[in-house]
Amino acid sequence: MKLASFLVGDRAAYGVATPTTVIDLSLVDPTIPDLKSLLAVLPQVPDMLKNAPIYALESVQLLPVIPNPEKILCVGLNYESHRIETGMPEMEHPVLFTRFSSTQVGHQGAIVRPNVSEKLDFEGELAVIIGQGGRHIKREDALKHVAGYSCYNDASIRDWQMHTQQFTAGKNFDATGAFGPWMVTPDEMPDLSSCTVTTRLNGEQVQHAPFSDLIFDVPALIEYISTFCTLSVGDVIVTGTPGGVGVKRKPRLYMKPGDLIEVEISGLGVLSNPIVAE
Amino acid sequence: MKLASFLVGDRAAYGVATPTTVIDLSLVDPTIPDLKSLLAVLPQVPDMLKNAPIYALESVQLLPVIPNPEKILCVGLNYESHRIETGMPEMEHPVLFTRFSSTQVGHQGAIVRPNVSEKLDFEGELAVIIGQGGRHIKREDALKHVAGYSCYNDASIRDWQMHTQQFTAGKNFDATGAFGPWMVTPDEMPDLSSCTVTTRLNGEQVQHAPFSDLIFDVPALIEYISTFCTLSVGDVIVTGTPGGVGVKRKPRLYMKPGDLIEVEISGLGVLSNPIVAE
Repeated sequence: MKLASFLVGDRAAYGVATPTTVIDLSLVDPTIPDLKSLLAVLPQVPDMLKNAPIYALESVQLLPVIPNPEKILCVGLNYESHRIETGMPEMEHPVLFTRFSSTQVGHQGAIVRPNVSEKLDFEGELAVIIGQGGRHIKREDALKHVAGYSCYNDASIRDWQMHTQQFTAGKNFDATGAFGPWMVTPDEMPDLSSCTVTTRLNGEQVQHAPFSDLIFDVPALIEYISTFCTLSVGDVIVTGTPGGVGVKRKPRLYMKPGDLIEVEISGLGVLSNPIVAE
Repeated sequence: MKLASFLVGDRAAYGVATPTTVIDLSLVDPTIPDLKSLLAVLPQVPDMLKNAPIYALESVQLLPVIPNPEKILCVGLNYESHRIETGMPEMEHPVLFTRFSSTQVGHQGAIVRPNVSEKLDFEGELAVIIGQGGRHIKREDALKHVAGYSCYNDASIRDWQMHTQQFTAGKNFDATGAFGPWMVTPDEMPDLSSCTVTTRLNGEQVQHAPFSDLIFDVPALIEYISTFCTLSVGDVIVTGTPGGVGVKRKPRLYMKPGDLIEVEISGLGVLSNPIVAE
């Protein structure tokens, strides 16, 4: 099943996505206000589908898959190819930073290059959406807590990311975290270890790696994070980007207004975003 | 005016705090579900007070002042005394990290020492609560965007904070961010530059500094943060801790179950929290 958040006119809605339509579940039950809440009651979806309105996919505006997660945890340096290009040492633990939900945009939403910097870089990634919360989740149980997967572009303002040792500023510019187009539940995903993530800038491939290259895989990340905090339904773990980022290329390759950036995950879909000036 | 969030029995509420009572405003207008929402309509408070129920302060359980901020931005190394004790270089920009709202506790709520570490340290700080959101807020306009001030204890698990270069894990253990007892609006605060923050562990002073020692003051922080992201009503900026933290003492001084930790800000109040084991 593919699930999405979207705007119907000005109304925020959510539901099931098919190749050409969305089925709007958001008016069925007022106690389920958003997709995050639906994830807690997924077995109700078949019943909810019966009388739900259907719209053409192209007639709605897709929102970030989860517009309002309680937590977004991003992983740095989680592919060997990216770790090596940054010159960072091997890490015993996942490098975690965070993104505010207010910095997100959906599929086809504009990623904004700010006025204060031209160093807007791409980072194609796999996003994991938590379905069942918990603390102290063991690695071997972790995948039971996953509601689904999506594409993420953790677009970064490199000079602000390096203002200090902490990445917060450069990872939290408004309209830089692209998340979509939808999430796919695990039963409809191919085996993750056989999937790849690919980033294309104006049609040209700039990043490509299999998830089997992840240094800390999804179960390891869930185990580590849930050791310190309780994961909640709708939380998002953005699992890190492979080598090929613009800041480490010679010459450097930043995104600029007029560009189109795409993140594709095999078996999942393509997240596509235009770049605009602030 | 002092404003607080609290539990009346099991019901989350908010309202005005006096030295011995709380006035419950949370049932007056269903379109104002929480204190964060009230901050956007503060001029309505006098009208709302007329028929609001009053409870003895001791009969309610205080919650984190803003239990559900969209953003909590914490500042590292923002007092010269703390920067020097950590051996970190002078910074041209504020060191920012983040805390999830789910890690917060209120006044008299237990700060939890986790099973995985005994290195639970205190950090007494001034918290700034945003009243009017905005982007690109200039330093000279910044204080107009402040709804009030409170005490914060940014309790930290030091070994997990240093697992990698990013502080996220050690700053986001469940039940480690104490926030309270209430917020005081700017008109009732003394001049900030004349105020001090003091931390006491079991009655003994362990940190003390005037806010005039802040390297990046409140207007500078608001200007910097709002350059990259839009501040929203209810957002919290935790402005940094002075020298004296436990990890830099000889011998080291960590908090342990049975301890009582207090953060006092002159003219504002005392935030008090017991330490318990996970």
